[in-house]
Amino acid sequence: MAESAAVLGEARVRVRYAETDQMGVVYHANYFVWFEIGRVELIRQMGLDYSRLEQDEGCLIAVVEATARYKAPARYDQELLVRTRLASVRGSILRFAYQIVRAADEVLLCEGSTVHVVVGRDMQRRPLPEQYRERFREFHIPDAKPDKSQEEAA
Amino acid sequence: MAESAAVLGEARVRVRYAETDQMGVVYHANYFVWFEIGRVELIRQMGLDYSRLEQDEGCLIAVVEATARYKAPARYDQELLVRTRLASVRGSILRFAYQIVRAADEVLLCEGSTVHVVVGRDMQRRPLPEQYRERFREFHIPDAKPDKSQEEAA
Amino acid sequence: MAESAAVLGEARVRVRYAETDQMGVVYHANYFVWFEIGRVELIRQMGLDYSRLEQDEGCLIAVVEATARYKAPARYDQELLVRTRLASVRGSILRFAYQIVRAADEVLLCEGSTVHVVVGRDMQRRPLPEQYRERFREFHIPDAKPDKSQEEAA
Amino acid sequence: MAESAAVLGEARVRVRYAETDQMGVVYHANYFVWFEIGRVELIRQMGLDYSRLEQDEGCLIAVVEATARYKAPARYDQELLVRTRLASVRGSILRFAYQIVRAADEVLLCEGSTVHVVVGRDMQRRPLPEQYRERFREFHIPDAKPDKSQEEAA
Repeated sequence: MAESAAVLGEARVRVRYAETDQMGVVYHANYFVWFEIGRVELIRQMGLDYSRLEQDEGCLIAVVEATARYKAPARYDQELLVRTRLASVRGSILRFAYQIVRAADEVLLCEGSTVHVVVGRDMQRRPLPEQYRERFREFHIPDAKPDKSQEEAA
Repeated sequence: MAESAAVLGEARVRVRYAETDQMGVVYHANYFVWFEIGRVELIRQMGLDYSRLEQDEGCLIAVVEATARYKAPARYDQELLVRTRLASVRGSILRFAYQIVRAADEVLLCEGSTVHVVVGRDMQRRPLPEQYRERFREFHIPDAKPDKSQEEAA
Repeated sequence: MAESAAVLGEARVRVRYAETDQMGVVYHANYFVWFEIGRVELIRQMGLDYSRLEQDEGCLIAVVEATARYKAPARYDQELLVRTRLASVRGSILRFAYQIVRAADEVLLCEGSTVHVVVGRDMQRRPLPEQYRERFREFHIPDAKPDKSQEEAA
Repeated sequence: MAESAAVLGEARVRVRYAETDQMGVVYHANYFVWFEIGRVELIRQMGLDYSRLEQDEGCLIAVVEATARYKAPARYDQELLVRTRLASVRGSILRFAYQIVRAADEVLLCEGSTVHVVVGRDMQRRPLPEQYRERFREFHIPDAKPDKSQEEAA
């Protein structure tokens, strides 16, 4: 992903005590919360604002699929980087891909993807507002090839 | 509280893995989530329905104060009892008191209280619907005396 | 799955207020917490005890992959059934499959799967204790047909 | 607290979607998670390291009491400042006080306090290592007067 740095969302999180479990590492469901932080940050870096999209346009980006593969455990107080890429935009369907690495040594801890559908407050599918759709198309980075991290979309 | 068993809310929860932290015990903020389970269960046992109150009446019971005192740690997979009492009803202000005990041996793990104010969807204070207010007054159990566990209400 | 009812884990959860988000439905990461409740309940119904496995054997069942597909939103205070199946056991690798349905009408809300590897306290892979391995083999229900991980939707 | 800026811990958090609930605001238990972020940050700003204290010294700082008073709701994507003060150090008992303000306009959203006891891995009380005790004494800021926000310590 190095060559796409300009359009790559990157968010920084520090592992909270509440996010650990008695195994001494981060509880696995929390990575999905971090994916979302990455997603929102990417949208912000595109010059858009997810909370406005909800408030002003009544558009919600509901999750319809979420996958994570855990490579190495994250631990309390570590700083992590959440790298997010908008992998595809088709009609009202969006797919984001994520990598979470340890900030200190860039070791990959987790990668995953989420698929979303744009809905209104009534939870019925609706088109993305034009401004967002164009921006999303402009910034999306398709999968390089049917590689390991995205095989579920093949 | 023994003599008030008839009007005492009791809910049962089993500690989830996600609720533990790397100390090997339950993370302290989760007790407030359990307090809420107790509160909703008490309201249900009064013959009322909190989700209806929100949906039909547009009434939210917002938390304005929350306190917990931790006596002994809860651990993964333990069954707990959340005992809830409606301690006072004054206008649109409600106070609930809680005890969380281990189901196996009735050891007290945590006690606490929450103070709430009834608000509308606009977050402005409003009176509780008559049906709820009467029911709440009927079922509330004032503090026995100004004892240690409720001094914040004194 | 109907014919396998005897070995099917079923756990019941009620949606907590803390599990909802401002979209008015359950936040998607929480389904993974419920998957775990189903998993632990299935293990219990097999006559085993996950917390013992950790404490007595020093064996942790770490998550290496987790997937969920969301079909319809779960809402506050609804009762849900988490149905869990041990889909495969190969060496120290386990795969569980889940369906979450609304208790009131059996509508499917979410399905998913998790892959686990058995590790010691040092997070290094190790074999499952014999007693557990046998029990797991006896109770596992392979996918109905050889598709990727989505067979439970067939 | 303005005059104590030099020794005041300040941490910055941005409200996560997962932290909101269907009331459209932050779920109240999450403020205790933020209090902890403030506490750990304050300890870091004192030149100490809480995760080291746990790992190297086997010392845990267990919560024995936690209180929050909610003044105004925090909302999704808002930036918040968590201001933490070590209010008292007596033997192995510590008390921290917190204020959470909205970064944009410094409006106070929540204030609270937590009381902690230093324990070993066996959850039995033990003294704080000398290095930490001295540092804590040096940096602690007693309550200005027995005012409303700290009456529980009076």
